[in-house]
Formats: sequence, structure tokens, C-alpha cells
Amino acid sequence: MLDPTLPDVAKDLSDLKTAVGDLPTALNIVWTLITGFLVMFMQAGFALVETGLCRKKNAAHVMAMNLLVYGIGVVGFWAVGFAIQMGGVGALATFGNDSTLSHEFTLAIGGKEYGLFGMKGFFLTFANYTPAVAALFLFQMVFMDTAATIPTGAMAERWKFISFCIFSVVISTVIYPVYANWTWGGGWLATMGKNLGLGHGHVDFAGSSVVHMTGGVMSLVGAKVLGARIGKFNKDGSPNPIPAHNIPMAVLGTLILAFGWFGFNPGSTLAATDTRISIVAVNTMLASASGAVAAGIYVWRRYGKPDPTWLANGMLAGLVAITAPCAFVGAPSSILIGAVAGVLVVVAAQVVERTLKVDDPVGAIAVHGVNGAWGVIALGLFANGSYGEGWNGVDGKVTGLFFGDGKQLFAECIGVMANVAYVGAMTWGALFIIGKLVGNRVSAEDEMEGLDVPEMGVHAYPDDVGTTTAAKEPEKELAADDLTSAQPAPGE
Amino acid sequence: MLDPTLPDVAKDLSDLKTAVGDLPTALNIVWTLITGFLVMFMQAGFALVETGLCRKKNAAHVMAMNLLVYGIGVVGFWAVGFAIQMGGVGALATFGNDSTLSHEFTLAIGGKEYGLFGMKGFFLTFANYTPAVAALFLFQMVFMDTAATIPTGAMAERWKFISFCIFSVVISTVIYPVYANWTWGGGWLATMGKNLGLGHGHVDFAGSSVVHMTGGVMSLVGAKVLGARIGKFNKDGSPNPIPAHNIPMAVLGTLILAFGWFGFNPGSTLAATDTRISIVAVNTMLASASGAVAAGIYVWRRYGKPDPTWLANGMLAGLVAITAPCAFVGAPSSILIGAVAGVLVVVAAQVVERTLKVDDPVGAIAVHGVNGAWGVIALGLFANGSYGEGWNGVDGKVTGLFFGDGKQLFAECIGVMANVAYVGAMTWGALFIIGKLVGNRVSAEDEMEGLDVPEMGVHAYPDDVGTTTAAKEPEKELAADDLTSAQPAPGE
Amino acid sequence: MLDPTLPDVAKDLSDLKTAVGDLPTALNIVWTLITGFLVMFMQAGFALVETGLCRKKNAAHVMAMNLLVYGIGVVGFWAVGFAIQMGGVGALATFGNDSTLSHEFTLAIGGKEYGLFGMKGFFLTFANYTPAVAALFLFQMVFMDTAATIPTGAMAERWKFISFCIFSVVISTVIYPVYANWTWGGGWLATMGKNLGLGHGHVDFAGSSVVHMTGGVMSLVGAKVLGARIGKFNKDGSPNPIPAHNIPMAVLGTLILAFGWFGFNPGSTLAATDTRISIVAVNTMLASASGAVAAGIYVWRRYGKPDPTWLANGMLAGLVAITAPCAFVGAPSSILIGAVAGVLVVVAAQVVERTLKVDDPVGAIAVHGVNGAWGVIALGLFANGSYGEGWNGVDGKVTGLFFGDGKQLFAECIGVMANVAYVGAMTWGALFIIGKLVGNRVSAEDEMEGLDVPEMGVHAYPDDVGTTTAAKEPEKELAADDLTSAQPAPGE
Repeated sequence: MLDPTLPDVAKDLSDLKTAVGDLPTALNIVWTLITGFLVMFMQAGFALVETGLCRKKNAAHVMAMNLLVYGIGVVGFWAVGFAIQMGGVGALATFGNDSTLSHEFTLAIGGKEYGLFGMKGFFLTFANYTPAVAALFLFQMVFMDTAATIPTGAMAERWKFISFCIFSVVISTVIYPVYANWTWGGGWLATMGKNLGLGHGHVDFAGSSVVHMTGGVMSLVGAKVLGARIGKFNKDGSPNPIPAHNIPMAVLGTLILAFGWFGFNPGSTLAATDTRISIVAVNTMLASASGAVAAGIYVWRRYGKPDPTWLANGMLAGLVAITAPCAFVGAPSSILIGAVAGVLVVVAAQVVERTLKVDDPVGAIAVHGVNGAWGVIALGLFANGSYGEGWNGVDGKVTGLFFGDGKQLFAECIGVMANVAYVGAMTWGALFIIGKLVGNRVSAEDEMEGLDVPEMGVHAYPDDVGTTTAAKEPEKELAADDLTSAQPAPGE
Repeated sequence: MLDPTLPDVAKDLSDLKTAVGDLPTALNIVWTLITGFLVMFMQAGFALVETGLCRKKNAAHVMAMNLLVYGIGVVGFWAVGFAIQMGGVGALATFGNDSTLSHEFTLAIGGKEYGLFGMKGFFLTFANYTPAVAALFLFQMVFMDTAATIPTGAMAERWKFISFCIFSVVISTVIYPVYANWTWGGGWLATMGKNLGLGHGHVDFAGSSVVHMTGGVMSLVGAKVLGARIGKFNKDGSPNPIPAHNIPMAVLGTLILAFGWFGFNPGSTLAATDTRISIVAVNTMLASASGAVAAGIYVWRRYGKPDPTWLANGMLAGLVAITAPCAFVGAPSSILIGAVAGVLVVVAAQVVERTLKVDDPVGAIAVHGVNGAWGVIALGLFANGSYGEGWNGVDGKVTGLFFGDGKQLFAECIGVMANVAYVGAMTWGALFIIGKLVGNRVSAEDEMEGLDVPEMGVHAYPDDVGTTTAAKEPEKELAADDLTSAQPAPGE
Repeated sequence: MLDPTLPDVAKDLSDLKTAVGDLPTALNIVWTLITGFLVMFMQAGFALVETGLCRKKNAAHVMAMNLLVYGIGVVGFWAVGFAIQMGGVGALATFGNDSTLSHEFTLAIGGKEYGLFGMKGFFLTFANYTPAVAALFLFQMVFMDTAATIPTGAMAERWKFISFCIFSVVISTVIYPVYANWTWGGGWLATMGKNLGLGHGHVDFAGSSVVHMTGGVMSLVGAKVLGARIGKFNKDGSPNPIPAHNIPMAVLGTLILAFGWFGFNPGSTLAATDTRISIVAVNTMLASASGAVAAGIYVWRRYGKPDPTWLANGMLAGLVAITAPCAFVGAPSSILIGAVAGVLVVVAAQVVERTLKVDDPVGAIAVHGVNGAWGVIALGLFANGSYGEGWNGVDGKVTGLFFGDGKQLFAECIGVMANVAYVGAMTWGALFIIGKLVGNRVSAEDEMEGLDVPEMGVHAYPDDVGTTTAAKEPEKELAADDLTSAQPAPGE
């Protein structure tokens, strides 16, 4: 005898399965969006750190770059970059319910496919524009923006605004998306594990290499191409200090960045149903703290005072370094990774300035470039085999040298070298062409005056013009003869 | 034979249904709260943008208005405003488990009911104070606050603090809630679709008209009633520029607003189970970007320099414009809507100043008023019929002129006209009465000195008093004879 | 006859139960993390409020303390503090799946156990480091940090940096965790209800006593130990005002704190499945508003001007006061609690300065200490019996004096007295020892010059050196002879 209630049960169960099935999707979209918003807010942090560490006379220029890089970046990534990054065998195909994973442009070597870039999803045209794809776009977009805003610090105080604008288009459409495709979009760095047996391929959880090294390498090449600020180096090659104009601004920016990083790293699961997010968050916190403390102790002992700009850069260095390994390591390792980063950033900044003779006003090369490399290498050392089952299609969990898998470290090093080579070459090429077209550097006269009026048409702090004392700056700030430009102030 | 396990299955299933049934509620409350918190944080963005764009001598006054408008607004909306807005046929009735949808004060015309305001929920007294109602209150409250804080910019640098306080009470209890009831609380603008066949009635997803136009129209009338700042216009009617005192502050505020807007627009679903939220977020991002880029290109070409205040106002204009249509349009339309807004804001600001001779220190009329109107009109043009099934009780999805429904555009225009007429008249009336009672404008002497000491009793930057050079301001800043007021500093 | 589909149904149901069972955990972790991030962001708010209310010449010093207290605090709490706070009968045992609730060090009196501190979880070593424990650690950590950053305001402008560093270690490892264990970790204040019949024991929903009183009491003792700033008091004991150097900075900080408080209070459920979160959020909002409004009205009437620093401190006072009772009271009570706080903070600051002759540059004692006490007392008065079933193992809901349970108020008062006695004694003892070791106060010469260069090696605003006019400060600011320290600026 068939129980009469059974059909109801089966129907109810089916309905309930549908209801439950939608909830993880909704929860994961909420998580991806909110953490993406936090990453977007890091743009404010970068704006403050970079502007605070530069001089008053360039404050409007640095701020404007940090504002507009977001605008330009969104447009470029929407039109082109997203398709190049994720439009191949990566997540777009999956999220877009597209079972043909064949939109990646690949090279076949020895019978194996090595992906170079995606080819689907330009302009987010209608068919692809589902909620899941939109969430993915937003999250990837703010990561790209983070990389794009890093050179505005290293190249500040002498970069022509028009050159900055064009270069930002290149970053958002080509430079960043291609390397991101290689690591996160199913490209050849990701498949090195499967294809060549190198651990899980180049693994970078939240972007020590993809985002930060890319920003740092662009900074190094860009600062080198532009040359040092007038007055930075003496004729004998020794450097002069050029003080930050607003320490509270820089510290506020650092705290905003540390806040936003809680989106950056934990959000990179793209899923709240993966409860690893809380371990990622705590590891991020631990490394930021030990980075600040270690940098503080190191500069205090070495230079006599715990300079707050180094406390800030130490915290940022710890954050950059933990970004790749945050999901794969334990708490004590996180403390150690951050502490190394805190010392490394100080030493690296010295090398950049004194050995390489490169002028980086905010320390971006040391913070993002050097510690970005340290981050992926740290993953290759400290990954403890507790997470990352099946990552990049390779069985088992991600494991570093100290826990038994030296090949993982090797894969990380290949990722570092590929970044330096590809991003470095692209940056140099792009700036070379832009330089020919419109010039990369402002005139010496504009640089002496400060870039705000010549480039942007406004003073950052009009009431303070003339209060800058010559003693504190190698060059004298010229008074603007024509403060009242033809441009209206808002509402005028 | 009855299977003995079946009763257990039925019981288990029933329990599970209960468990699952609560999860969407919890998730939606989380979403509504967190996005509401982000909107509240926009208060900091407004404070910074408005203060940064004004002069140093009024900085404490502008900041204090932006802080206190939140306090006054919460109290007024708690006591009265929320009940007027949502205490009728709108969401309060639903959330409050009240099946009698009859607390709306309506006019009956031609056998149909036209709602004017709600009448239930004053003071959030006990019976109504459920979690769902509390979440709704919080979200609606911060939207009201956004409208309320807009006039503090347009009327800055000459508005008497006591007049501001009283007017803020009027906004939060009457001006905003009534128009919000018409559109979001089940009032006559919402039911135009059902009653008169005009599309889905006046549709405004997240407040281009309800919040921003309301703020912009109050700004226009308020700035007109107050009159221009001393020195703004010459005797021949030509305007003088009055430079922003702190560009980094204004840019930081803009980035905070762009961050908070990710709460404003996506949060307006009030539900994370509606995964449209991620498309809303991306459309918001796209329009903010194209607004900044378009404004930048336009002012660069027209005035010679990419003034950062216009980059900022362009981004804000794009955000205001996409606020109404963000859920209903595609990605390319969002780019276009933002780009139009970016140009429109510059042109509109010129018209306000040169044609209307109205002095708006921060550009609030152009940003929020003009682009608020553009936002709802853009919905009437670009809504592509992909979302909004059953909106305002009308079958089918929301569709604009370019996709086949010209009546929707007509409904949007009625909403715009109603806003101008109602909000304009109420603002004029309220300021007229307040002016009779306590006066709206500070004395010329206080205005010349700066409002900080006469009105607030403190200098914003006491160390900088006297550093303002006369050359950069039409009027001379007077030194405060009696800096040390009777008031204690904190801790004194 | 067994229905052949039944086993499938049972299997499906079992699978579904598992799937559903994980979702609440994921949702609650998301909630705890995101609200924890918001609390971490309050560090930026404190940094801005404290720096804004101090003088320009100490701005880098105050900012650096606010940055480094987070770094030091994380390391100390990771190594020791968390285990002491939560490693006993509290949540760690539960979250860690450890059924033996016996890691609390207890005193047995009259046959009952009174817990003093936990003893498990040092260094977050591997076995304990689950997602749930990590989320709990993060949330408790940022609460500890909030307490730790409060004294940096009250002791600002004369506190030696090395003393601050050591004291912060003591806070994060001992002072805070022990009292937090007593209230939130299963210690004797929590079990007073069960053991002694005093209501539900000392109940503090989100930390009016655990966080804010602890910070306030440390501030009082610390400011007393350090003594007043040079020039603060005249020989006859009358105080001199020392103006805040940057009002917009202080107001921005206040708005950031009010934003972060939406993490602080609602997050303290540690669960989004408890939809009480939205009522907690609204009560928090209401009290912050009535605090600002009440303080504004009070100072306006009493001193003639609505000083923005008092609007800010009034808002903060309302927030501190509602922190303990926010989950247990109704909306009108929240308005009342905040309004009392807004007046109380002004009166208390006067008492601190004029009666106790203690110099608190930012008003931390009045805001956090006095209103922290008012918060837990308000819970003992206004808790309306609508929430807290089974809290601290006591049947029934939490109910205050006005709703019938005077014993609850008594338990709150014991918590207040225990805080004053324990935190006060520990602070005094720690500072006594630190003073012997390295000294607590900077030299008079350094204080006169400003702490930035002597202590930190940088000027906060190097371009503004020398612009401070003597008239506005009791002591003259000395010019730094040696601006260019041996330390490199970032990138140098």
C-alpha cells in the first residue's frame, strides 16, 4: 500500500532543495560583494598614504591620480581587461554557465596547452551579465585597481597627468589582466602544476604577485624611466630626505588599507561557505601587526627613533607578504612572515634608494614589489598542507618546502620571475611609447612650482601657499602668479 | 503497511523547513543592516566633501552641521518621519505583520485611492519594534539623512546654525517622509501605474528623486533664500571663484561616498536573496567611473585643466544618476548614463551660477538636483525590461522608452515635477517661517570673520588663524579678538 | 510493502540536513567577521579624534600611538591575552569542541567556583585554530584593541613612547583579558547570577564596562600618574583651555567611530541567526543621536555656543552608554539613555578637570569611564525583560529595576566597582614599574617643543613648523634645530 503522504514529502523535499540550493549562492554573492566593496575602499587608503607622504605642493595632483585611476580602470577593465583575464578557462566560463572552456588563447608546447589570455566577455554585454559574473567582475576589478594605483605613489611629484591617464588605460586593459590570467584565469602559471608537476602551479591566494608585485614592478620601472625628483640626489649620488607633508594623513591611509585588506584576503575565497575565511582574516591581522612591530623595533634600534612612516610601511609590508600565503599557513607562521616583511621593507627601501639610485617617494617598490615577491616565496616555504585540495586541478593540498614540497617553492619562483620579466617589459614599452607621444615627465619649472596649479589648475591648500619654508625642501616653491584660473570652482 | 520511518521523515522535513525558512530572513537582515551601515558612513563623505570645498574659516561650522544633521535626523525620523513614510500601505504594514493596510491617509479621486502619508509607527513603540521593522527603519533613516545633509553644502558659509537645526527637524519629520511615502510607501506616485496605466508608476530604485532630487531642490531654494556669499558676485553679476580650502579632503570624501554608494544602491533590494544585487553594484561602479572620466575630459578640453573638484563632482553625478535605474539597465547603458551625468554636472553648475545667479559653494544643486532628475528620466529611457516584475502592483517588468514603454518615461517625469513642486514649496515655506522666528542668515560681520568662532565658539584650525592671505579671498578674514571662549575644550 | 522511493527520500533528507546545517555557521562567521572588521576600523576613528583634539606639535606622536597600539595589541593578545580571556569555561572551550570545561583557574568559596582566568589557547597553536575559534579571536581582539587605544588620548602630549609600548603589552596580555574573562569568559562576575542569585550576573552586552570603563579607568589613573600637561593648570589650580588643533579631523573620527559601532554592538551577538541584531543596531543609532543632540543643547544653553567637540563627545558618550544595554531595552529607553549620556559627559569632564584636577586632553575619562559605568547601570535600570533568555546560565530574560528586578542593578554595580578596583590597581602598578624602568613622562623640554621630533623623529606637518602662534598656546613651540634626522623618509 502506497502511503498517501509520500508524494507530498517528495514534493516538499524537492521544493526545499531548491530553496536551500539558492541560499549558498546568495550568501556567497553577499560575501564577494561586501569584501569587494572593502577592497574598493582601499583606493581611499592609497590616496591618503601617497598624498600624505608627498609634498604639499603636489597634493592635489597625487589625490587626483588616485581618484581618476579608479574611473579609468573601471572603464578599461569593463571594456577589455576582464575578458582578457577571466574570459578563458577561468571563472567566467564557469560562472557564465558556459561549458565550452575554449575561449583561452593558448600555446601548445609538447602536446600541452599553455594559456595566455581569455577572449570572452568584452563590455559585459548582455548574455554574460548574470549576477555571478557581475560579482566576479566587481571583485576582480577592484583588485586590478589596487595594482593600478601603486605606481601613482612611486612616480608621484613629477609624472605628467596625461601620461598617467594613458598608462592607466594600458594597465587596466593589458598589463594587469594578462598576468592575472596566467595565475587566476587558467593560464600557464596556474597549469604548471598539472602540466609540469610543479606542486599546484604558481599559487597566489589573494595577490602578493598578481596585484602587489605587478604594482611594485611597474613602480620600479616607472620611477626609473621618470628619473628622480629634482633635489633628491646630490651630485655625488647621495640622497636627500624629502619629508612627508602630512603624517596623520599617511597613518589614516594605512589604517584604511589594513581595514580594506580584510576584504582583500578573506574575500578571495569568493565564497562564505568556505569557512576558511576566518583563518585567512586572522592570519592577515597577525602579519600586519608583526610587520608594524618588527619595522618599529628595527628602525628604532638602527636609526634611533620609531619613525611613524616606517611603522606604517611595516604594517603594509606585512599585509602584502601575507596576501599570497594567508589561507595556507598557521598563526605562528603568519607572525613570522609579517615580521620578516617589516624588516625587509626598510632594508629594501635603502637598496632602492642608495644602490639602485631610484627615487620612490612613498616606498612602493619596497612595500609592494619586494614584499610581494616575499609573499609568494613565503607560501612556497610555509604552506602547511592544511588547505587547497585540488587547487589548479592538482590532487592534494598546497604544501611548501618546510612541510615537504620543494617543487611548490620552485613554482612560486617561476611566478616571480615571470612577473618581473613580463610586467617590467610591458611597463617599459608602454612608457616608452607614451613618452614619445605626449611625454612622461613634467617640466622642471612645473616640478619646482609644484604640480598642482600647472597640471590640475588648483592649489590643494590655497590658504597655505607661501607658508612652505625653503629650509625644509631642496627646491624653493614658487608662488603662483595666476591663482585664479579660467576654470570654475564647483558651483561656479 | 505503513513504513515506520515515515513519521520521522515528515517530522524531520518539517523541522528542516522551519530552519531553512529562518535563514533567508537572517541573510536579508544582514544585507539590509550592512548596506545601511555603509550608507550611514556616507555622512562622513558628505562632511569631507562639503568642508573641503568651503573655506578654512568656516570648516568647523560645516563639519558641525554634517555631524548634527545625523543626530537631529535620527531623532526626528524616529519620532515622526518613519511613520509618515512607511506607516501606511508601504512596508511597515507588511513587516509589522499587520494585515490591515489602511493606515495611509488617502484622497479618493474618481473611485481610486491616492495615498498621501502613513499614520502608524511613531516613536517605534513596542508592538511595532520587531527585527524586520528595525532593519527597515535603519535603512530608511540613513536614506533620509542623505537627503538632509545635502543642503548643508549648498547653504554653507552663511547659514545660521539655529536655522539649520530647525530646518533639519522639518526635513526629517515632514519634507522627506511625505515624498518618500508617495514613491516608496505606497503613495500616489507609486500607484500611478495601477491607477492610471502609466507604466509601473514613478519608479526610483534607490533614490535619484526621493533622496537626491529632494536634497537638490532643497539646496536650490535654500541657497536662493539665503542669497549669495559676500564677494561671490560682482556688481555686474559676474561671479568670482572662491577656492576650495582642502582638495585632499574633498577627494577623500568623494571616495567615501563612492564606497558608501555600494550600500545605497545594492542595499535597496532589502534582500540578498535577490541576487540582482551584484548587477546593481556593477552598474553603480560603471556609472561612477564614466561620470568621473567624462567630466574630466570635458573640463580638460573646455577649461584646459582636469580640475580634481570636477573629477570628484563628475563621479558623484554619475552615482546620483545611476541610483534610480541601477537595477533595470545593462552595463553599456550604465556607462552612458554616467557619462552624460559627468558632462551635465559641469554645464548645470554653470547655469546655476551664471544664469540663475545662485551661489552653491559645493555644486550640490548640479550634482544632486539636476542629476537626480536625469537619473529617473534615464530609467524611463533605458530600462530594458529585465527586472521589476510586478513592481508597484503592475504586471510585467519595468521598461523604458528605448525598449518600448513611453508611458514609463511619462511617469518618471511626473515624479520629477511633483518633487520640484512639493519639495520646493515646503522648503520655501519652512525657511520663510524659520526666518521670521530666528533668522536664516548670519550677520555680515560674522560671515566676514568666518562662522567658526561666532557660531560654534571654536576655530577649526586654531594654529592657522591669520595665515589666510587676503589675495585669495574676496573678503578679508578678521582676527578673533577673543579666541578663548567661555566654553571648555573637551576634558576641561 | 516498502515504498521503493523512501530510502532515497531519507538519504536526500539527510544530505539536505547537512547542507542546511552548515549554512547558519557560515552566515554567523560572515557576520562576526564583517562586524569585527568594522570594529577594527574604529582604530582609525580613535586616531583621528585623539589627534584632532591635541596640538599640531604632537600629532605624529598621537597618530603613531594609535597605529602601533593595534600592532602591539594583536601580538600580545595572540600570544597570551586570548587564552586568559576565553581559554576557560568561556567560548573557546565550546568553539574548540573541547568538552572538558576545566581550563579556568578558579577560586572555590563556600563550595562554589569563581573563575579568575583561562589557561588554554596561547599562540593559537594548531589544534585550536579552527574557523570558529579564529572568528572569535578576531572579534575579541578588536574589542581589546578598543580598550587599549583609549588611554593614548587621555595620556597624550606627554607620554613617553617607550612607556606607551610596554604598557600596551600589559593591557593586551593581562589587564583587559582578566576583566573580560570575569564578564565574558565565564569568570566570577558572569556567574554571580547563578552562584549568588544576583539577576543574570554582571551583564554587559557589548562592553560598556569590559571595554569602555576599562579604557576610562586606565585613562584616569594614567593621566593622574603622568600629571597635567605644562601650562594646563595655573598656580591657583584653575585650568587653561588648550584648543584642539583640527576640528574636522576630530569630527571625521567621530563619524568613523559611530560607523564602526554598528559592528561593535550588533556584532556582539556573534550570530546573524539571532535577528535581534537589527534592534541592537537601531538602539545604537538612537542613543548616538540623542547623545549628540542633548550635549549640543546643554552646552549651547550653558556656554552659549554648540561647540562641535561637545557634539562629537556627546555622540560618543551616547554610544558608550548604549553599548551594555543595547540588546535589552526599547527604542524610547535608548533615546533616554543617550540623552543622559550627552549631558553627563559634559558635567563629568568638568568634574575631572576642576574637581579632580586631572588633565585629559580628549575627554576620554568622561566619555568612556563615566559613561561606561552609566551604560551598565542603565542596563540594570531599563532592561525590559524582552531578551537574554538563559543568559549566564540563569533562567528567564534580563530585567532591570524599572521592570522588576533590582538585583540585576546590584550585579551591574558590583561589576562597576570590580572594574574600578581591578583596572585601577593594575594600571597604577604597571605604570609604577614602567616608570622605574624607563620613565613614563617625556622631559619638559621635549614637551615644550612638541613630542613629534624628539620622540618620533619627524614633524607631523613639516611645512607648518613655525606657524603656530604663541598666543594660542600656553607654552611656546620651539623650532626644531635639526629637522633632518638620521632616519630616512620612506623610499630613502
